[in-house]
Amino acid sequence: MKFCSDCGSSVSQQIPKGDNRLRFVCNDCETIHYQNPRIIAGCVVEHDNKVLLCKRAIEPRKGYWTLPAGFMENGETVEESAVRETWEEALAKVSNPELYSMFNLPHISQVYIFYRGSLLAGEYGAGEETLESRLFSESDIPWNELAFPTIHKALKHFFSDTQNDHFPVRIEDINFSKK
Amino acid sequence: MKFCSDCGSSVSQQIPKGDNRLRFVCNDCETIHYQNPRIIAGCVVEHDNKVLLCKRAIEPRKGYWTLPAGFMENGETVEESAVRETWEEALAKVSNPELYSMFNLPHISQVYIFYRGSLLAGEYGAGEETLESRLFSESDIPWNELAFPTIHKALKHFFSDTQNDHFPVRIEDINFSKK
Repeated sequence: MKFCSDCGSSVSQQIPKGDNRLRFVCNDCETIHYQNPRIIAGCVVEHDNKVLLCKRAIEPRKGYWTLPAGFMENGETVEESAVRETWEEALAKVSNPELYSMFNLPHISQVYIFYRGSLLAGEYGAGEETLESRLFSESDIPWNELAFPTIHKALKHFFSDTQNDHFPVRIEDINFSKK
Repeated sequence: MKFCSDCGSSVSQQIPKGDNRLRFVCNDCETIHYQNPRIIAGCVVEHDNKVLLCKRAIEPRKGYWTLPAGFMENGETVEESAVRETWEEALAKVSNPELYSMFNLPHISQVYIFYRGSLLAGEYGAGEETLESRLFSESDIPWNELAFPTIHKALKHFFSDTQNDHFPVRIEDINFSKK
């Protein structure tokens, strides 16, 4: 951030009065511009003991497999966001979505939130950001071609929890800056 | 948003190519400025069947009672954020925090996430944004002087779940624009 989005003047990093963190503050109108983490919402969609994955048509990680997921938008609930992304990326509808996992990625200020649900009518396809979608059983998951660590973790949890038919909300931190 | 935070030129609302939503786009450098929901993290802190509330020293809702909570910051996990806010507002440390509730407020693009935990050493106080902190039993909760609907819901869930000694993750949507 270099300029104030309110008045167009230059900003500088300062610790505002009563605060303890550096913020971008306008040198002219003194507006404080807070920056906060973003939520990425998606779904683990199951059908016949298989999970729906999408091959990414866009960077980052083009050509790698992902669970349908994307940035939560203003005006949505987390569940609405997860279900919308599943439709946009995999042309799939989710029945009975339930909160399933929350992954913190503090080094990039992201929180991944996955819902778990069933594939409605067994129908899916490829949205604009997807090369192809496919249902994978555990033994067929392309573990070395997954797009992100969060996808790997969500799938590992899912197949493990499937064995016990018990799906507690899974929370994990993935912090590469500490490794 | 009126000006581009990258180059200082004016922005206008447009639907970028491949997108389906209005975004602020710079008229000069064409940077797309996405805006996303924010997470507010806090804690339901229990001690001797009582819950710790803070009387707000700042607007909005100055003088009303709240659970310690605030905006999640970049570089944090949700739990770290909830625990930090509890320290900053109530000078209280939380033992064994566990995810407890998620409230969607799509009309203001906020997601409240509460952790539940015990008060460490029974110690608390009033941080800079707090007039006073106090432990309330269910019958003493100032139900008509709570700061926000999320606080009301979190407390109702908590005292109800306490009776069963079972605390599932509670998810609710609070959408005033639909009422």
